[in-house]
Amino acid sequence: MNGPLRIGVAGLGTVGVGVLQLLDRHGGLIAARAGRPIVVSAVSARDRGKKRPADISGLRWFGDPAAMARDPEIDAVLELIGGADGVAKDVTEAAIAAGRHVVTANKALLAVHGAGLARAAESAGVTLAYEAAVAGGIPIIKTLREGLAANGISRVYGILNGTCNYILTSMRDTGRDFAEVLAEAQELGYAEADPGFDIDGVDAAHKLAILTALAFGCEVDFGGVYIEGIREVSALDIAFAEELGYRIKLLGIATQGEDGIEQRVHPCMVPQGTPIAHVDGVFNAVVAEGDFAGRVLVEGQGAGAEPTASAVVADLIDIARGIALPTFAIPAAELRRLPALPAERHVGGQYIRLMVLDRPGVMADVTAALRDEDISLEALLQHGRSPDGAVPVVITTHETTGAAMDRALARIADLKAVLEPPRRIRIELL
Amino acid sequence: MNGPLRIGVAGLGTVGVGVLQLLDRHGGLIAARAGRPIVVSAVSARDRGKKRPADISGLRWFGDPAAMARDPEIDAVLELIGGADGVAKDVTEAAIAAGRHVVTANKALLAVHGAGLARAAESAGVTLAYEAAVAGGIPIIKTLREGLAANGISRVYGILNGTCNYILTSMRDTGRDFAEVLAEAQELGYAEADPGFDIDGVDAAHKLAILTALAFGCEVDFGGVYIEGIREVSALDIAFAEELGYRIKLLGIATQGEDGIEQRVHPCMVPQGTPIAHVDGVFNAVVAEGDFAGRVLVEGQGAGAEPTASAVVADLIDIARGIALPTFAIPAAELRRLPALPAERHVGGQYIRLMVLDRPGVMADVTAALRDEDISLEALLQHGRSPDGAVPVVITTHETTGAAMDRALARIADLKAVLEPPRRIRIELL
Repeated sequence: MNGPLRIGVAGLGTVGVGVLQLLDRHGGLIAARAGRPIVVSAVSARDRGKKRPADISGLRWFGDPAAMARDPEIDAVLELIGGADGVAKDVTEAAIAAGRHVVTANKALLAVHGAGLARAAESAGVTLAYEAAVAGGIPIIKTLREGLAANGISRVYGILNGTCNYILTSMRDTGRDFAEVLAEAQELGYAEADPGFDIDGVDAAHKLAILTALAFGCEVDFGGVYIEGIREVSALDIAFAEELGYRIKLLGIATQGEDGIEQRVHPCMVPQGTPIAHVDGVFNAVVAEGDFAGRVLVEGQGAGAEPTASAVVADLIDIARGIALPTFAIPAAELRRLPALPAERHVGGQYIRLMVLDRPGVMADVTAALRDEDISLEALLQHGRSPDGAVPVVITTHETTGAAMDRALARIADLKAVLEPPRRIRIELL
Repeated sequence: MNGPLRIGVAGLGTVGVGVLQLLDRHGGLIAARAGRPIVVSAVSARDRGKKRPADISGLRWFGDPAAMARDPEIDAVLELIGGADGVAKDVTEAAIAAGRHVVTANKALLAVHGAGLARAAESAGVTLAYEAAVAGGIPIIKTLREGLAANGISRVYGILNGTCNYILTSMRDTGRDFAEVLAEAQELGYAEADPGFDIDGVDAAHKLAILTALAFGCEVDFGGVYIEGIREVSALDIAFAEELGYRIKLLGIATQGEDGIEQRVHPCMVPQGTPIAHVDGVFNAVVAEGDFAGRVLVEGQGAGAEPTASAVVADLIDIARGIALPTFAIPAAELRRLPALPAERHVGGQYIRLMVLDRPGVMADVTAALRDEDISLEALLQHGRSPDGAVPVVITTHETTGAAMDRALARIADLKAVLEPPRRIRIELL
């Protein structure tokens, strides 16, 4: 075990280059911690000649990453290509079939094909490691799989997308609206040109599905995640949240219930006193609730070349040290298939914001619709006056089901005096 | 490797009993995650007949824990006795000599004898695990040793003592003074009858010394820690801190400098916007700054039977899985001996609070003493008037050395108009 761990890097985007730079900078440190050196034996990417901030001229080159994965001088393959299918999946499967360990940063691949890949890796006796796939530089996979291994986990939740958290933080700090802040985030490189994957919650849902499998010992079920992004969050709602003692965060939340698993990604009102309310900007944070450890929060940078490279190389060091664990903490064959609980059944408080005509009788109609669904009010705010114009009305409610609120909101939306579709944000007391 | 891991538990106080309860509650889960069952083979404590909330009647009993450690039917020994020397050290050494793995929650033992015990364990080819020794249920040892293994660490710091954090939080929330809050904490069981170990900073210093060794790859050097507790923190200082935008926290801070290691435990003013300022009550938190991962914060319960048991059993699961790592992440023989940098050389801002006679000329004398040491002022606060009586004066300074401030404060303390010894709290911008 004292020979070097020889790796092949598939994908030389910012993360791939970050890994090469990290291995170059910390070669000695890594050899001391891993018990042997980690050396790059080969690389593969789409364009060999592309200018990159790392010198790859001395490394073997493969045009076909799957061929690299089968190369006899490779012990472990880094899959840093991305995407749930296509080349990324092909390389991963080829590497596992050839008996190579795989380290991936690919949340989509794991979220969609995690159960099958885990079975394949365990049959082949290789490690499939993915610390970098969830929350970048935060070692949350290791924390759940090993650090909290003695606990029954009741809930895991977190801020899993730095782009959304940056946008929501910036909206709060500046009072500006979503579109303007998104444009700025795109200029600064915090949001992609095509931002849908992030702001519509899909990226966070991929990560949540992985955390769920690990926390509860069940098969990854990305299809079971309820997903709602942040496009509809307005500056007005953020201001009302502050006034009511909340912050708006896009959270992924997974809970183990008696009859299944509830997975939700959506904007939440969280009390300002709770630790996750203070996780701002591009930072991510994950909270796991263990029955012995209690609430454990891990916060750090969820994206970027350097934090992601830190996670990738930590996985490599584990492999070099000979640490071999099941992909999802327990053998893949023992992972349960648990029913997905629909979000409409979730019980909790809700925040509703209406734009209504400022005239008598409107509130009577609105509150009657809530009463008829047995929804009780916690607070009601109305600011400003605009006789016969539109004013915002905010209502927070005590616990109710999503389904009851859906019915009440449908009736409220139909009222003549309600001028825009009602906005609804779930309250999470955490 | 599929036979059970057989353990002997030395010490049946709250933590020992918590471990027995955890193993009992989660036997199936642990076997799935560890790949084999973990079974209690024997126990040892001072008093066999003592009433405990766990049934030990079916377990083998050893009056002498060192004899238990040598028993051929024991694979791993849990040292849950406590104390840097005496029985705890004897059991640990006996277990290592007999080729048994050791899991300990004993921060004093590791802080004082860590380097020697690590060498002994590695020579014997056994694991010496101590997740429970630092910050209870927070998996910070694993985070530093494995999760951030690809990073050069520049600084590690944290809230390492829940008793102190509870007292400081309660003082802030209620405006009461130290002695009163300490008495209440003792009644509630958050502080010991003899609280010195906690409130004088020794416990935090033990933990910091362990984190330092792990973060920087050096031998544990408890003697090199500058230690100052929280007895002198007053309600007045806490109120001024809030006014100035700070919170007072007892932090342990270790920094790697060019010519050595600086380790400090003392009350700090931290900006209210920094994450650690929001870690309240009995919670602990540790921050590690990696050159690739960036700032990673882990927060959770730092003490108590259940969180501590969670950490002890996580170590056992690692051992059962066959994970064998050097005690301090790199082989003990390679740990460096680095000089301890004296706290007087530390450069930073400082908060000073004086009680002075409210009459002309006093401030001129005070500020002259600071000027003569080249200390520049950031802010100066004086509230209230009390002609010819005492009023508090608060000064915050820009960066200065501890040594310069020591000299200035000695001169200020000698002024006739300064009625009490000056109070000084370091500002940490983090």
